[in-house]
Amino acid sequence: MQIDAERLQRDLETNAQFGSVDVDDGHARTVLTGTEADKRAREYFVRRLREAEMDVRIDGVGNIVGRWVPETANPDSKAVATGSHLDSVPEGGIFDGPLGVYAGLEAVRTMQDANLAVRRPMEVVCFTEEEGQRFGVGALGSAVAAESLSIEDAHTLTDDQGTTLETALDSIGFLGEGRIHPEEWDSWLELHIEQDTRLEAENTSVGVVTAITGIARCTVSVTGEANHAGTTLMTDRTDALAAASTVVNEIETAAIQLNEQDAPTAVATVGSFEVSPGAPNVVPGRVDFTVDVRDISHKTMLDLIDRVQASLETVEAERGVETSFSLPRHRKPREMSQRCRRAVHETATEADISATDLHSGAAHDTMRLEPFTDVGLLFAPSTDGISHNPLEWTDWEDCANCTEVLANSLFYLSDE
Amino acid sequence: MQIDAERLQRDLETNAQFGSVDVDDGHARTVLTGTEADKRAREYFVRRLREAEMDVRIDGVGNIVGRWVPETANPDSKAVATGSHLDSVPEGGIFDGPLGVYAGLEAVRTMQDANLAVRRPMEVVCFTEEEGQRFGVGALGSAVAAESLSIEDAHTLTDDQGTTLETALDSIGFLGEGRIHPEEWDSWLELHIEQDTRLEAENTSVGVVTAITGIARCTVSVTGEANHAGTTLMTDRTDALAAASTVVNEIETAAIQLNEQDAPTAVATVGSFEVSPGAPNVVPGRVDFTVDVRDISHKTMLDLIDRVQASLETVEAERGVETSFSLPRHRKPREMSQRCRRAVHETATEADISATDLHSGAAHDTMRLEPFTDVGLLFAPSTDGISHNPLEWTDWEDCANCTEVLANSLFYLSDE
Repeated sequence: MQIDAERLQRDLETNAQFGSVDVDDGHARTVLTGTEADKRAREYFVRRLREAEMDVRIDGVGNIVGRWVPETANPDSKAVATGSHLDSVPEGGIFDGPLGVYAGLEAVRTMQDANLAVRRPMEVVCFTEEEGQRFGVGALGSAVAAESLSIEDAHTLTDDQGTTLETALDSIGFLGEGRIHPEEWDSWLELHIEQDTRLEAENTSVGVVTAITGIARCTVSVTGEANHAGTTLMTDRTDALAAASTVVNEIETAAIQLNEQDAPTAVATVGSFEVSPGAPNVVPGRVDFTVDVRDISHKTMLDLIDRVQASLETVEAERGVETSFSLPRHRKPREMSQRCRRAVHETATEADISATDLHSGAAHDTMRLEPFTDVGLLFAPSTDGISHNPLEWTDWEDCANCTEVLANSLFYLSDE
Repeated sequence: MQIDAERLQRDLETNAQFGSVDVDDGHARTVLTGTEADKRAREYFVRRLREAEMDVRIDGVGNIVGRWVPETANPDSKAVATGSHLDSVPEGGIFDGPLGVYAGLEAVRTMQDANLAVRRPMEVVCFTEEEGQRFGVGALGSAVAAESLSIEDAHTLTDDQGTTLETALDSIGFLGEGRIHPEEWDSWLELHIEQDTRLEAENTSVGVVTAITGIARCTVSVTGEANHAGTTLMTDRTDALAAASTVVNEIETAAIQLNEQDAPTAVATVGSFEVSPGAPNVVPGRVDFTVDVRDISHKTMLDLIDRVQASLETVEAERGVETSFSLPRHRKPREMSQRCRRAVHETATEADISATDLHSGAAHDTMRLEPFTDVGLLFAPSTDGISHNPLEWTDWEDCANCTEVLANSLFYLSDE
């Protein structure tokens, strides 16, 4: 099965115009949920779905589903589904999201053109607000599909100006009804850009994701005593920054030690780090920071969290600071289904397109769907690993190769 | 010579009303240069100087000098001078500054009342903007006296609203002409609160400052690479915060090691510390921080600065970060004159008031005057070491004892 690479490229280039931003270098677009740019992107996608003779429905949070029921399929059988998202971060790139949406559509068109005996309905999905940039919840549309967020609660989410998601979707004509039921799908595949350099480094066309890492977001405070930097002798200090710095280094050491044992994918990051009062002539009295812990093994994540807490206990005992620790966000790793991974590997081999296993350190809509159906996630190479940036790039040939593997994999899954 | 403790207390309590702020606990005042509160504080001080039959002059940056020429003095001989400042930090205490100003006035009144044969003119000074709270330069008035800041440059300093110092002083009627010439003084003494607990801990009435520590303010940046906290493996990171944390801990260790050798007063403080981009899910790409280094030994300060730079070189080599280092502010330690220290010790012993040597970790106007005349600095005990705070407190008996030592010391110096 040969996809139409030019047709795919035209769709992606057209989509790139919606919300496009002039930049010196690269291609930027800003597509936030419920904006004019989002309206135009969605309307074009719906038009292209209908041109492929697909039925279009919009759910209660604006998720778009295009459905094709082949003549050779039992319309009551479970559908094979695919898709991604069309929204972006501010001045994001043109592939993060749209590649998976239009590759899904191109896969359906290719199956139609090839007159294959497709045995299941096919659905192509555009999820709302994957980036969480306007209403603050990442993978929002798939969260509603997974019932981890109710439609009612989603509707009342507000942006910085107090506009609700419901109002924003209504204003662009994309407030539908009901929700997507992923448990009614036979299987799900998402194609996304890698946002890392592993495929590029190995000169490989397709990444077959084994698991999406879990994420724990720890919130930590270290409280000492703010004091005059000139009159307070070293021995009289309870310096919150010195204590927090010790913890930062111990967290890094703990992650590296686990990497060297049996968890090469484990990462721990202190990313937000606020020092108070933050004046050059005052010994810091307090530091508030976050620790972001991720791995494909939940046990490793728990080990790392234990190490963070042990380090806090040590600075309490050795330095007299007080500490607090909370874990407001904790999502376990999600393994991709063996069935979907096999479908991708076999069709890639068949088409003589190189594929390799890797994990995803970033979150994707697919993780939300994992409890409900067989899921798989494919990665396309990202030049220099850059994403969320106008310099984000995936070669058109890689887009075509990955879309071909996606199309063949969807057909493979529908045929089992 | 016996001072009038009640008269001193009345002056300080009256002064405390100007700019007073209602607080639940303690006594707060906000006296910023060129404000209504400052005007009232200055006008009261000038009135009290004139009531003591002193000539008053105002210089080009609002420094106030009250001059008494005793009948027993040669009016052309060099004056013995004393004083401090009347401005405060926002919601500061009532002793930091005013104690030294009104103790100076009380010393003159006491000499007058006692009909002593004072052999030199006496000058009592109120310096402008010691706290640097409105126009950004600490010890501003004495900097002009020391010619490290010209009157013209001082006039063009602006506050947050763009008002110049010249306009602000003019608006309250305290823009005079010329400048103070400290080289024309025989000697200078300042009484100030300690802002530390050493006198309290030793139950001693008067601190005789041996030296005011030097201060070096280093500005440092550590640049790594901002990266996705999920997709960037530990081995692929150049984490600016992890590198900066190592430096913070090495700076602390270096200061403590010097303390344990022969520099017990050396301190190093990382007080301002800004992490970019500062998002929980992004590996920090850059940290900007300050290192405040102080000691009474310049050699020790230079040692500490060397250790900071060595630590930066180490993280560059070991972690691949880039660093920058600059030293925008560097003031050497200032030793107080042996002559002034002896005057204080001898008169304290004479009056059976306990006195002890200590150093000052904080800056004071006196440091500016050190190159020009013999200078001394006396400390009064601070309850719990608290200052720049409504809970700042010095017992009235300590105020009286210190003022008595100040008065006797000024007379002692005038008599040499």
